[in-house]
Amino acid sequence: MESPKNALDTLFNPRSIAVVGASQDPEKLGYILHKNVIDYKYKGKVYPVNPKIDTILGQKAYPRISSIPEKVDLALLSIPSHLVLPVVQECGECGVKSLVILSSGFQEAGSEGEQIQKRIRKICLSSGMRALGPNCMGIYNLSANLNGTYFWELPRIQGNISFISQSGAYGGILFNEIRQRRIGISKFVSIGNMIDINQADILRYLSKDEDTRTIALFIEDIRDGQEFIAAASEVSRLKPIVAFKAGRSEAGTRAAKSHTGALAGSYQVYEAAFKQSGVISALNTEEFFDVTMGLSSWHGCLPKNNNLAILTISGGPSVTASDTCEEIGLGVPKFSELIREQIKRYIPFFGADSNPVDMTPQMNPDNYEACVDTVFSLPEIGGAIAINVGLDRKEFASAFVKASKKHAKPVVSFTIDTPELSKIFNQNSIPIYPTPERSVHAYNGLVKYRTYSERKRSKDAEQKTLKLSILLEQLSQEGKKTLTERESAKVLQEYGIPVCRESIAKNMEEGMEEAKSIGFPVVLKIHSQDILHKSETGGVFVDLKDEGEFKDAWQKILKRFGQSSEVLIQEYIPPGVELIIGGKTDPIFGPTVLLGLGGVFTEVLKDISLRICPLDKREALNMIQELKGYSILKGYRGKAKCNLDAIANVLLNVSHLLLSNNRLQELDINPLIAHEKRAVAVDALMVLA
Amino acid sequence: MESPKNALDTLFNPRSIAVVGASQDPEKLGYILHKNVIDYKYKGKVYPVNPKIDTILGQKAYPRISSIPEKVDLALLSIPSHLVLPVVQECGECGVKSLVILSSGFQEAGSEGEQIQKRIRKICLSSGMRALGPNCMGIYNLSANLNGTYFWELPRIQGNISFISQSGAYGGILFNEIRQRRIGISKFVSIGNMIDINQADILRYLSKDEDTRTIALFIEDIRDGQEFIAAASEVSRLKPIVAFKAGRSEAGTRAAKSHTGALAGSYQVYEAAFKQSGVISALNTEEFFDVTMGLSSWHGCLPKNNNLAILTISGGPSVTASDTCEEIGLGVPKFSELIREQIKRYIPFFGADSNPVDMTPQMNPDNYEACVDTVFSLPEIGGAIAINVGLDRKEFASAFVKASKKHAKPVVSFTIDTPELSKIFNQNSIPIYPTPERSVHAYNGLVKYRTYSERKRSKDAEQKTLKLSILLEQLSQEGKKTLTERESAKVLQEYGIPVCRESIAKNMEEGMEEAKSIGFPVVLKIHSQDILHKSETGGVFVDLKDEGEFKDAWQKILKRFGQSSEVLIQEYIPPGVELIIGGKTDPIFGPTVLLGLGGVFTEVLKDISLRICPLDKREALNMIQELKGYSILKGYRGKAKCNLDAIANVLLNVSHLLLSNNRLQELDINPLIAHEKRAVAVDALMVLA
Repeated sequence: MESPKNALDTLFNPRSIAVVGASQDPEKLGYILHKNVIDYKYKGKVYPVNPKIDTILGQKAYPRISSIPEKVDLALLSIPSHLVLPVVQECGECGVKSLVILSSGFQEAGSEGEQIQKRIRKICLSSGMRALGPNCMGIYNLSANLNGTYFWELPRIQGNISFISQSGAYGGILFNEIRQRRIGISKFVSIGNMIDINQADILRYLSKDEDTRTIALFIEDIRDGQEFIAAASEVSRLKPIVAFKAGRSEAGTRAAKSHTGALAGSYQVYEAAFKQSGVISALNTEEFFDVTMGLSSWHGCLPKNNNLAILTISGGPSVTASDTCEEIGLGVPKFSELIREQIKRYIPFFGADSNPVDMTPQMNPDNYEACVDTVFSLPEIGGAIAINVGLDRKEFASAFVKASKKHAKPVVSFTIDTPELSKIFNQNSIPIYPTPERSVHAYNGLVKYRTYSERKRSKDAEQKTLKLSILLEQLSQEGKKTLTERESAKVLQEYGIPVCRESIAKNMEEGMEEAKSIGFPVVLKIHSQDILHKSETGGVFVDLKDEGEFKDAWQKILKRFGQSSEVLIQEYIPPGVELIIGGKTDPIFGPTVLLGLGGVFTEVLKDISLRICPLDKREALNMIQELKGYSILKGYRGKAKCNLDAIANVLLNVSHLLLSNNRLQELDINPLIAHEKRAVAVDALMVLA
Repeated sequence: MESPKNALDTLFNPRSIAVVGASQDPEKLGYILHKNVIDYKYKGKVYPVNPKIDTILGQKAYPRISSIPEKVDLALLSIPSHLVLPVVQECGECGVKSLVILSSGFQEAGSEGEQIQKRIRKICLSSGMRALGPNCMGIYNLSANLNGTYFWELPRIQGNISFISQSGAYGGILFNEIRQRRIGISKFVSIGNMIDINQADILRYLSKDEDTRTIALFIEDIRDGQEFIAAASEVSRLKPIVAFKAGRSEAGTRAAKSHTGALAGSYQVYEAAFKQSGVISALNTEEFFDVTMGLSSWHGCLPKNNNLAILTISGGPSVTASDTCEEIGLGVPKFSELIREQIKRYIPFFGADSNPVDMTPQMNPDNYEACVDTVFSLPEIGGAIAINVGLDRKEFASAFVKASKKHAKPVVSFTIDTPELSKIFNQNSIPIYPTPERSVHAYNGLVKYRTYSERKRSKDAEQKTLKLSILLEQLSQEGKKTLTERESAKVLQEYGIPVCRESIAKNMEEGMEEAKSIGFPVVLKIHSQDILHKSETGGVFVDLKDEGEFKDAWQKILKRFGQSSEVLIQEYIPPGVELIIGGKTDPIFGPTVLLGLGGVFTEVLKDISLRICPLDKREALNMIQELKGYSILKGYRGKAKCNLDAIANVLLNVSHLLLSNNRLQELDINPLIAHEKRAVAVDALMVLA
């Protein structure tokens, strides 16, 4: 047996295992765990640990870890929660390399359990031992014949999917799926309460694992957001990562909290993290497994674009497949007359020659190959969905296999009641799904992974040096909590965010100078803290176009408020599209930026987009395009298009500002007014921690 | 054999069958059809028809229908499309009662096929023969041992689901599902191009069929919308109808058209039809079958409210179930402290005592019954989702069976790897689904059906007598196409829709009288067809609050436009929430009413709701509540709530107007301004056919 290369390697490939809590009682979980280790033919040494018994399942039992004659790589703990701490202590002292704590009753059970977890963690940190769990179902590594789990039955076909799950039951669901589809698995890791080893650790390990091609993640929560993003961004360039985040709703969050002690966190922030780190996010259990399995059969051949062809032997399912494509943004383009004429030659006269192509059950099987090849040869088609219900012809299957290889375009299929055909698809890694919709969603996983795998490493986001705001620092030291409008504007200016220019003048000559330097048109406002309703009392004059109008307005202000009044001169920002930009620190992921359209869009429709800092330009533009009201920014009803680049730059600078100043707790630019040429922050509010 | 009671009965329960196109060649569809009839042990007489052969599958063959010695109830036609017409002619002459035309190559293949269809239809009408198809997979009635389909293998367990499908393949998908779940079927009807028999006919037949409890409909199109609504409304009061409409997208519609010659129709209008006739609409293939199967196991015990409990043995799936509940509007309410204390007694200390209840795998099986009963006894809980992954305990299953019966509350389950438990659930009609999400969607089908089955027969919509508009009639006869604003307003008034009151006066005294009769505040406008920009030229004065302001404005108008000017006096409608109401005639369903909020809501967000006329008050209120911007009408940001009742009344009156006047092609009220007290049509446009 090879020597483990690093600490995590002792978890996946230990040379020896201690099973603490092994038992003679088949009803006990410790019995199952021990039996699993033996039954799956683990090749290293196994030491059952139980102080009350001498022999278990034919193996000599040891009263405690310290009585085991040699060093133990991995200890599996299946004992009552109150006994865990002393055993961990002992493991640390005996030089155990890694632990899997399967026992429940810790953080998920309340504050007492949380305290014990902290002490366990401390022992691990000081001894260098790595720990998985507690409150988990264990670890499975097929290539090492290691079943260190409670599971009743695990798939024994070597596959390329590795699964990291915060729920044991989701392991069970996955295994059930895998058995039904007769595919294989590489590794399964149930991470439970993540006392030490978390998703990022496993991701990094799996990125180098030759047996792993696709990584699936069932997530209830992430503890260190930035660490996750860093690891996932790195790994997703090499291997697809598919994630399913549970706990999106209020009731779901409650359930997750009592399950693994997951912290409430906004689902939207998780979604942002997935997008930014190239993780494909699934919306439900089936999509999670479907996309994972679709990507596991991926062999270098991803869709080249977002358009696909649907080829079927019967109409109905091709209609629902088309509907699903359109709903999720995949194109099913019509074919040209020329191509339709060509297809007509192969299919019956009552078939459909455009996209979808309905070849009908009556088609001559000799024509499949030519027909499918004609469609695959179209450059505008990135791949295909093959649909067959009950017409079990080998010629159908091989037509797709050939065309897919020849044109290097992927095929995903929906077929039922086609045993021979399915066998050929399975042999050629063409995944089969049980409904048209599911085949389309799985295909979409390939499209998404192409986008992610092609993206460039972003430089502007990573290389920008942080720059502390002097003003913020100063105000914070003065004990200030909420900044004034003018102070906020100054901070924005420090970070290159265009603000509404303004200045105060004591007399008209001074004011005129300022107005000229700001540039006409301008706004004049009486400057006095005593006057609350400046507009209502006639203290505000907007859109003053020239010196004449300026003088006029100035005189009126003096007349109304006294000759010694101070006056505020402001740049006049004409009406445009009003946006809101917010900044907030998420407890898990750190600073986040929010973008929304003003008014009903944000307040009634909750139409916002969100990202975690740092941002890059591409992500900033994605944020803008994600808004439901995006068409308004593109020039709604003949109005001018807003400068999207200017908006994106504000987002980038806000991100920079948030990252640079950890004293800044909250930031609100409301409104940011966007025009054809620029975007200006007209009002802003900042709150210090 | 009993004598068929009506024409459709000869389709489902024929005393004799002719198989036209029966063949000795096992590759031919006619061979399969004939063999199916024999293999499924049909008890009546079978006459294979083929002019070229004497004996087929041991039965004497007849050269043609007319050579069969006795009357034939049902003829199954499986012959090339160009031979169908003469055979139909012959069937009519020989007194055949009903036909199933399985052959393809008609409307779906182009205009020539459409012409033949028309001629077939004519023969049917004149001979009284009823026809199913063409371009279909046939008919299956298990209780009559009748397999008149092309299907390779059909379920032979008698069940209570009857399935009407416009796609043969969807029949195949259903049968596959049914086999996998080991449940049964009652009838299957593939309706194809619907030359004669349509969904409404079959619905009415099945409503009286004792073997049918649940009806599932796969729809590509409906040809007579009002007939469908009438039939479905009637039947859905007795039996649940679940529909899945394919062809929601542009590509999907194209596929449907070439499949069954389905007409393009707006999916939104179909959705409206389903809502209004109590049909449960599914959004995808799985939901379609899941909800159908959930309802088929329904035995009088429907959820009493929208809240449910989730009881599980493992956390993860309960989290995703909770998420799904919240996303589709089912409540998962937290339990009171008192109840939580009670539950705590039954579950391990690390379990979850609120909703979801996580009983964990370690729970003592003796406690299941008391724990589940405690939850079911809560009046705020309408039913439950039971979740189990791999913990195959009978006590778990029987706890739910008992509680469900005792409290008359339904249970739907997600379980895998639990053979013993599943057996008990199956025996007790507790449906099992393979993912948490699917169990929740299926449960939601029960909730929806409760709502539909409880709804009262609407009187106001059905009994309102139509009332022809004299003005519309007159304008139409004059050849008018587009009505002026004032003409439109008059028509609206005829139907009791509040409009902005107005009047023209030649002098101030007259004007003042009018203003008083309208009531202050009023608007004055110069009345002249020559003046285009009335506002810009100073010809409009709004919000005139009293006689003084009125006189002032009048003088100014005279001064500007001449002493002999005519002036329009209008009621002043203060700003409120602006709505749009549209009326349009759908080619399939007839007049429809559309409601939207003005501005970005309608134009950018396409936030509209739609119904088919006639409407009742409940549906009109549903329309309002369906809008994404509904919260604006409820009093957004401290503004007054709009009078929803007034808006609903306008919708009802618009429906009345549209139904009464078939010359009215299009109607647009834009805006309807809604306030706290009323809703007024400020501007309207009508187009005549």
